[in-house]
Amino acid sequence: MKTLDSTLFEDHLRQRAADMERLLSDLLDSTVRDDEIVRPNHLLAAMRHGTLNGGKRLRPFLVQESALLFGGDPEAASRVGAALECLHSYSLIHDDLPAMDDDDLRRGQPTVHKAFDEATAILAGDSLLTYAFDIITAPATKLAADRKVELVLALSRAAGLGGMAGGQALDLAAETTAPDEDGVITLQAMKTGALLRFACEAGAIIAGASEDDRKRLRRFGEIIGLAFQIADDVLDVTSDAATMGKATGKDADRGKATLVSRNGLDWAERRLDQLVTEAVELLQPYGEKAQVLVATARFVANRKS
Amino acid sequence: MKTLDSTLFEDHLRQRAADMERLLSDLLDSTVRDDEIVRPNHLLAAMRHGTLNGGKRLRPFLVQESALLFGGDPEAASRVGAALECLHSYSLIHDDLPAMDDDDLRRGQPTVHKAFDEATAILAGDSLLTYAFDIITAPATKLAADRKVELVLALSRAAGLGGMAGGQALDLAAETTAPDEDGVITLQAMKTGALLRFACEAGAIIAGASEDDRKRLRRFGEIIGLAFQIADDVLDVTSDAATMGKATGKDADRGKATLVSRNGLDWAERRLDQLVTEAVELLQPYGEKAQVLVATARFVANRKS
Repeated sequence: MKTLDSTLFEDHLRQRAADMERLLSDLLDSTVRDDEIVRPNHLLAAMRHGTLNGGKRLRPFLVQESALLFGGDPEAASRVGAALECLHSYSLIHDDLPAMDDDDLRRGQPTVHKAFDEATAILAGDSLLTYAFDIITAPATKLAADRKVELVLALSRAAGLGGMAGGQALDLAAETTAPDEDGVITLQAMKTGALLRFACEAGAIIAGASEDDRKRLRRFGEIIGLAFQIADDVLDVTSDAATMGKATGKDADRGKATLVSRNGLDWAERRLDQLVTEAVELLQPYGEKAQVLVATARFVANRKS
Repeated sequence: MKTLDSTLFEDHLRQRAADMERLLSDLLDSTVRDDEIVRPNHLLAAMRHGTLNGGKRLRPFLVQESALLFGGDPEAASRVGAALECLHSYSLIHDDLPAMDDDDLRRGQPTVHKAFDEATAILAGDSLLTYAFDIITAPATKLAADRKVELVLALSRAAGLGGMAGGQALDLAAETTAPDEDGVITLQAMKTGALLRFACEAGAIIAGASEDDRKRLRRFGEIIGLAFQIADDVLDVTSDAATMGKATGKDADRGKATLVSRNGLDWAERRLDQLVTEAVELLQPYGEKAQVLVATARFVANRKS
C-alpha cells in the first residue's frame, strides 16, 4: 500500500484539529438550545477551558477518517467526533481532580479545578459527558435514528463502568493492588482503549458499513488503543514535563507498573512495530482509501508528545 | 374528577418502588453486557450503594404513569424510568461530595463518598450518568429508534448545563451571589424541575402521544417540579433530620434564600394549593385515566418526608 508522507499527514491532522476547535467552540457557545433554560456563564467557561485547549483531536479525527473510508457523511462524522471529544474532555477534567490523579497542569495550562474550583470542575465534567449524548441525538446531526441509537449505545458502553470509567477505577486501585500483566492489559483496554475503539467503530456506524467492515474497524481501533498506551508509557519514562505539558514519571512515582516498565523499552519498540504491521494488514482490503488511517496508526505508535 | 384515596395511592407508589428496586438491582448486577470489558466490583458496589437505597422512585413512577395515560408499553416505560433513576442517583452522589454540598447522610445511610471514598463516588456518579443512556438505547428497551433518540435528547438537555447540572452550578454560586426571586425560580427549575418535567414528558414520548398531549404532560411535569421544590423548602424549615434521613435546615445555615424563606409558610401553602388546582385542570381532558397522576400531584404537594 502507498504510504502517506508523515509531514503531509501531520498537516492534515492539524488542519482537522483547527476545524474541530471551531466546531467545539460553536457547540459550547452561550446560545441557549431548545429545552435548555439557561447556560450559566461560569460553568460554560469551565467547560470551554477543559475542552478548547488545542489538543490533537485524535479521537474525532479517527471518527471522521473511518466514516470517510465507507462514504459516511463528513458533517455528521464531525459532530459525532465533537461529541466524543466532549466526552474525552470530561474524563480528563475528572481524572485531574485532587481525589483522582491530582494534576495541576494539562497541556501546559492549569487544570479546570485549578483555574476554577473543584465543584465547578466536577460539574463541567458532568455537563460535558451529558452534552456528548445531546450532540449525537440533536436534529443538527443528520443521521437516521437507528444509527444514532447505535452510536449512543456503543459510546455509553465504551465510556461507562465496563469501559473508560471502570478502567479509571481499576487504575486508581492499581496503586495498592498491583495487578499482574493481564490485569494491566485489561485496565488499559478499558481506560484508554475503549474510547479509541469506539472512535473507529463510530465511523463504520455513521456510514452504515457492513458488519464485517464494522468488526474490522473495531479491531483497528483496538490496535490504535494498544499502540497509544504503549507510546504513552514510553513517553512517561523518556520525556519531560516541558515537552508533555503535564507531569511525567508519575507512574513510577506511584509504583504503578506499566507494560513498558515491566518489559522494557526494547520490548515496547518491537510491540509497536507489530501493532503497526497488524494495522496495515487489517486495512489492506481497502487499498489506498485507507492510507490516512494507516498513517494514523504509524503516527500514534511514533508520537513524541 | 373522581379522586383516588391517598392510602390506595401510597400503596400503589410503594408497590411500584419495590418493582423498580428489583429492576435497578438487575441492571446493576455483575453480568458483563455486550461491548463491556469488566464490571469492576468495587465501582459496581458504589453504584449500587448510591442507587438501591429504598427511595420513593417518584421519577420512574411519573414516567410509567404518563406512559400508561397514552397506552405506552409498561415494560419500556419501566426501563426508561430506571434510566432516569440512575441519572437522578448520579446527581445525588455528586451533590453530596465534599466539594459540593458536603453531606454525610442520605436516607439515613452514609453517602457514597463516606461509605467508599471520593474518587469512587465521582466515578460511580459518572458511570450512573453514562449508564442512563445505555439503558434507554439498549436492545432490551423495546421502543422504535426515533423515540429512543427523542428520549436521549430530552434527557440530556434536562440533565446538562442548561438543566440540572447548570442548576447545581447556580445553586452553589447562590451562597455568595444571593439571587433575586426570579433567579431562585430559574435555578430551581433547572436543578429540580428539569428532571421532573422530563419524567412526565418521557411517558408521552414513549407512547408516541400527540404534540399537544406531550406539551400538556410537559407542563404537568413543571407543576410537579414547582410543588416538589416548595414542599422540600417547607420541610427544610419544619422537619428534623430523623424524619428526613439527611441534614435539614441547611439552606438557612448557608444563608441561601428559598421561595419559602422569602415568602413564608402561609404563602407556601396557598401556592401548593394553586399548583394542585392547575394540575387537576390540566389533566381534566383525560378524565378518570389521569387520576393516579392527579393523586401524584397532591402527594408531592403534601409530602412529609
